Amino acid sequence: MRPVIREQEFADRWKKVQALMEEQKVDLVAAYADDRYVYGQAYSRWLVDYEPQFEAAFVLVPAVGEPCIITGAESVEFALLSSKCRNVKAIWEFLHPDEEYPYCQVTHLDSVIRELEESSGRKIINVGIAGKSAVPYDLYRTLTGRFGEEHLVDMDASMSMLRAVKTENEIEVIRYAYQIAEAGMQKVYESIREGITEREIAAEAEYVMRKMGAEGMGIAMMVNSGPENTSPILSRTTFRRIEKGDLVVATIAPRYEGYHGAIGRPFVLGTPADDIKRYIELVMYAQEETRKMLRPGVTAREMDAVSRKYIEEAGMGSHFAYSGIHSTGTIEFEPPILSSKLDLTLQKNMVFSIDIPMFLNDWGGMRLENGYLVTEDGCEALCSCDVNYKKESL
Amino acid sequence: MRPVIREQEFADRWKKVQALMEEQKVDLVAAYADDRYVYGQAYSRWLVDYEPQFEAAFVLVPAVGEPCIITGAESVEFALLSSKCRNVKAIWEFLHPDEEYPYCQVTHLDSVIRELEESSGRKIINVGIAGKSAVPYDLYRTLTGRFGEEHLVDMDASMSMLRAVKTENEIEVIRYAYQIAEAGMQKVYESIREGITEREIAAEAEYVMRKMGAEGMGIAMMVNSGPENTSPILSRTTFRRIEKGDLVVATIAPRYEGYHGAIGRPFVLGTPADDIKRYIELVMYAQEETRKMLRPGVTAREMDAVSRKYIEEAGMGSHFAYSGIHSTGTIEFEPPILSSKLDLTLQKNMVFSIDIPMFLNDWGGMRLENGYLVTEDGCEALCSCDVNYKKESL
Repeated sequence: MRPVIREQEFADRWKKVQALMEEQKVDLVAAYADDRYVYGQAYSRWLVDYEPQFEAAFVLVPAVGEPCIITGAESVEFALLSSKCRNVKAIWEFLHPDEEYPYCQVTHLDSVIRELEESSGRKIINVGIAGKSAVPYDLYRTLTGRFGEEHLVDMDASMSMLRAVKTENEIEVIRYAYQIAEAGMQKVYESIREGITEREIAAEAEYVMRKMGAEGMGIAMMVNSGPENTSPILSRTTFRRIEKGDLVVATIAPRYEGYHGAIGRPFVLGTPADDIKRYIELVMYAQEETRKMLRPGVTAREMDAVSRKYIEEAGMGSHFAYSGIHSTGTIEFEPPILSSKLDLTLQKNMVFSIDIPMFLNDWGGMRLENGYLVTEDGCEALCSCDVNYKKESL
Repeated sequence: MRPVIREQEFADRWKKVQALMEEQKVDLVAAYADDRYVYGQAYSRWLVDYEPQFEAAFVLVPAVGEPCIITGAESVEFALLSSKCRNVKAIWEFLHPDEEYPYCQVTHLDSVIRELEESSGRKIINVGIAGKSAVPYDLYRTLTGRFGEEHLVDMDASMSMLRAVKTENEIEVIRYAYQIAEAGMQKVYESIREGITEREIAAEAEYVMRKMGAEGMGIAMMVNSGPENTSPILSRTTFRRIEKGDLVVATIAPRYEGYHGAIGRPFVLGTPADDIKRYIELVMYAQEETRKMLRPGVTAREMDAVSRKYIEEAGMGSHFAYSGIHSTGTIEFEPPILSSKLDLTLQKNMVFSIDIPMFLNDWGGMRLENGYLVTEDGCEALCSCDVNYKKESL
């Protein structure tokens, strides 16, 4: 049986959010959601198991009672069927301006707010916004128009920290998401051969992951080969054909029950060039030394420093192009993101991706990314970190 | 050989946009792009062949000279490699607030604008925004802060109309996108059997489409079965197992070279119930009668009316839940969207999806969606419209 997020989890989350709202003196949380690959469903999935398609939405959490969803006319029955919300309304502000929905009941934000005020017995004055950086200008203006800009509170940081320590139920689901990711990566490994295209490799790996139950990907799968295509941090998967001696880099983040397994691997078809062999061994070493540090009580700063240390010592620091350690969950790349500016002490049951990057070289680039669960006194790998990263031994 | 969009196409598009800018007295176009499934890459793909991942971007088109891209720190080399832009800048306004990029050169919008003013020899005062409905509040504020709200012009309608009549090169690519979609749908048909899950069917179809070269999907693939799951307009593909007699509905929109083939089909495993058989015949009839009307010179209103006519006459009008005819291109569902409020006369080389919906019934729902190219004196189907829609004959 595949694990699922149980009903009770959602009720527990609403209580956590409502406790946070009490603390921050906020009368309503409006969490934004859309069909963006990376960030789109982060909050809506966690709050009410809703994954928007096509139309955007806000999940509204009142101080008392159950959340509701406001969205466009095409999503009402979809949200009622697939989410945990029993109250879903189409509102004019979300409607596609060029379409006509002559038969759909559409209402205004104002009347939804009045209903929530009645059902919760509480006037809504201060509103917390989650996912603010993605909220479109016009929708945000709808909120400032109704509540006044001075009453909108950015709750992104505090809301996303509610997701940082995972529950047992979430851990079950995340374990399975990583199993899917690992099966996909194994398929990448098996598929690499002379003449196959990057896109064909992605097709093979996605097929395996979808068959295991992946809903989709938390970022479009990246398979890249050769110096030019592997050098940038992000990429498009192309029709380039793999050649002997090529470096091939794959990044995979399948989503299952709203949760992501995120892994990345370099491979070499045939015998790697000396320098590439050395760099692969270096990122493996940095990954392993970083893993050894991962435990409750260590700080974000210490983790960030160790992840960069060995790469910097080798004179490759400028190719460690971003912050390498981040949580994974309903976003494949979510807060906490461990950087030198973050005040955070790690706790048991946080889940982290350790992503050692070495991009932007003449010879190309790579990442080695694994997932770990923070345990009582260390960490546990959520994927087999010694997966064969090469087609021939180094 | 798979068709591609050739270099010259992009140069031609820049000229078209610059002519429109001249007309609208606009000194710069800022076209927004992000990793949204449906709308994300609409403009950036058409303008400069750029498909953002993870970080959002603006494509800036000056009155004279080539477009440039402004985006986040992780996308610069990616955009330089994969897009037609030779000028890509990371700007602070796009950076992830929690990450650190100690080695990336980051600049401000202001200095990019000054550079564009110098290279074009023209002061930038009025700025046209494309994709405005998706632009996040903070990014939009960056633009209003720099230019003043009174100098921002919503160019969504006029810019998207530049894409409405397809070129010969685009038609080649679109034909192939529809071939991919049709192969995917054929695989749905072949995969339907007792006991298979909706998600497994999607896995099979996506595999076929990805192997043919699909980059991804313009909307997450929807495979739904049974009364409950087929009833809503939008859906999540679930683990429900197909049973004998089930209605199964699939909607597919693979993307190839930035262009989409969008098709939707009902299937029945076994012998359909009498009413479902009647409704399938009705949507087929409505589809065919609408197709017969599709030609240069007909108006949007006439097309919308005929698409609804037969469904309404059968007393099912309220289940025709949205506007059924729309263009497809770099969005699987893009303007022009043919509604009773649109003033538009159809032209040769427009591409339309005729989507006859019948949703929100006790017995479930369905769409029958085909793609057509408007020709000299009629239209040409881009997919085989008589694909088997059932596993047993009606």
